[in-house]
Amino acid sequence: MRVALGVSYNGQAYSGWQSQLSGNTIQDKLEAALARFATHPVSTLCAGRTDAGVHGLMQVVHFDTPLNRPPSSWVRGTNTFLPADIAVQWASHVPDGFHSRASAVARRYAYVLLQSPVRPSVDAGRVGWVYHPLDHAAMRQAADYLLGEHDFTSFRASACQAKSPVKTLTRIDITRRGLGEPHAELGWSPCYWRFEFEANAFLHHMIRNLMGCLVAIGRGDQPPEWMQQVLQARSRDAAAPTFSPDGLYFQGPVYDAAWGLPQRTAAYDWLP
Amino acid sequence: MRVALGVSYNGQAYSGWQSQLSGNTIQDKLEAALARFATHPVSTLCAGRTDAGVHGLMQVVHFDTPLNRPPSSWVRGTNTFLPADIAVQWASHVPDGFHSRASAVARRYAYVLLQSPVRPSVDAGRVGWVYHPLDHAAMRQAADYLLGEHDFTSFRASACQAKSPVKTLTRIDITRRGLGEPHAELGWSPCYWRFEFEANAFLHHMIRNLMGCLVAIGRGDQPPEWMQQVLQARSRDAAAPTFSPDGLYFQGPVYDAAWGLPQRTAAYDWLP
Repeated sequence: MRVALGVSYNGQAYSGWQSQLSGNTIQDKLEAALARFATHPVSTLCAGRTDAGVHGLMQVVHFDTPLNRPPSSWVRGTNTFLPADIAVQWASHVPDGFHSRASAVARRYAYVLLQSPVRPSVDAGRVGWVYHPLDHAAMRQAADYLLGEHDFTSFRASACQAKSPVKTLTRIDITRRGLGEPHAELGWSPCYWRFEFEANAFLHHMIRNLMGCLVAIGRGDQPPEWMQQVLQARSRDAAAPTFSPDGLYFQGPVYDAAWGLPQRTAAYDWLP
Repeated sequence: MRVALGVSYNGQAYSGWQSQLSGNTIQDKLEAALARFATHPVSTLCAGRTDAGVHGLMQVVHFDTPLNRPPSSWVRGTNTFLPADIAVQWASHVPDGFHSRASAVARRYAYVLLQSPVRPSVDAGRVGWVYHPLDHAAMRQAADYLLGEHDFTSFRASACQAKSPVKTLTRIDITRRGLGEPHAELGWSPCYWRFEFEANAFLHHMIRNLMGCLVAIGRGDQPPEWMQQVLQARSRDAAAPTFSPDGLYFQGPVYDAAWGLPQRTAAYDWLP
């Protein structure tokens, strides 16, 4: 029997998704909890591996088991053995043809950025940080160059294992929230920026590399047209440095509705 | 010279605000950082002590120093020596008559609650949790009994050092956010509740005790009128158990505008 799970986690304490000898990854914690509940070893495959420090709002995994237990028992039973910062949100029986990675037709990520003269504190490790005000229109223009099918080699980590650097970016939303009183010395207000990305698939470090370039343009270090130049260069050297993992959230994969899996990404969709 | 500071912190890792021999409190970390920057010992007094696990969006402290440094240098210099989850947001020179606690005319707190069949994960330690749906109208009616000047003995911890249990609660706002798709088995949607409280002052554990009662009423365990009975009983035994510190945020004190201090509580006002 094949089972799919939706899993949420705070990535701050972990060395990323993928299993390591250290055992300090989200996959390691999840498989250990599943094995305790199932009383047999469990191997999972996920929709999208996340780096160290990156968070998951609705990662999806699947695994095979000889057990026939109600889906709700997989949620409650596994959560009993998981640390406080990882939780299974739902479980569903799926046909053997379902594959968490191969069946995903799209992926969604959010990046949350604190714009403030002072570094994060209450939300340290959960948001990226810029201490210059960002130009919304400039970032919007730059983002528009990225939409559609492109060779994203310039935004690809050297360790990337994807077969092709050609991906289709279907959506980039940029919103700001939380305007306060202007800062006395600087004359601008602290706020949060939220960036949402949707594509058929992403390359390794692609969003963090895109964020590095968007922030460089938002700060005025580069003009919006620079994004097009970076894209066309097809060279990692053309782009800005990789941005911090702290504000990156994997919102989850998108599947064909025929699989009957929950579409929601918990209540977290609106979280900063 | 008297200096006031606005300080934000995530309380998860600390044994509360007030200095202890262990040294693992926010006051200890702040005074150690101030001493390193000032190169003299610094004693601070705060507007409102927070318990272990409670967060601060804009705690205000004051201290005296023989140094005459620009306010911005107190922000940047002190932050250099503070851990990642504590940050000074602003500094201001104040007259000797200013006192962070005695000058405060009101205090504001927020409590954030996750309503979900599954416990928190991405925001573990930052939100309280209920796994039953709450009734907005019932909690609103119950909250209205609390507004105004009352003897809040029923909501007071035994360790409370306040001279009088009579306080004036001027505002309780209750809002919900983040409705998603209804949960397949339960038929209701995960969401966040945000409670905001403003009073001239609060007793020890008062908000966590109020939250315990509001949640009991929201779940339907008690009718809204029960809040009035608890209030009138003037006995801690009448109230529900003290609610978790995880979702409690000290938004900060309110001062007369004549002191010229920043009114903002950072960008965090809208945070869940």
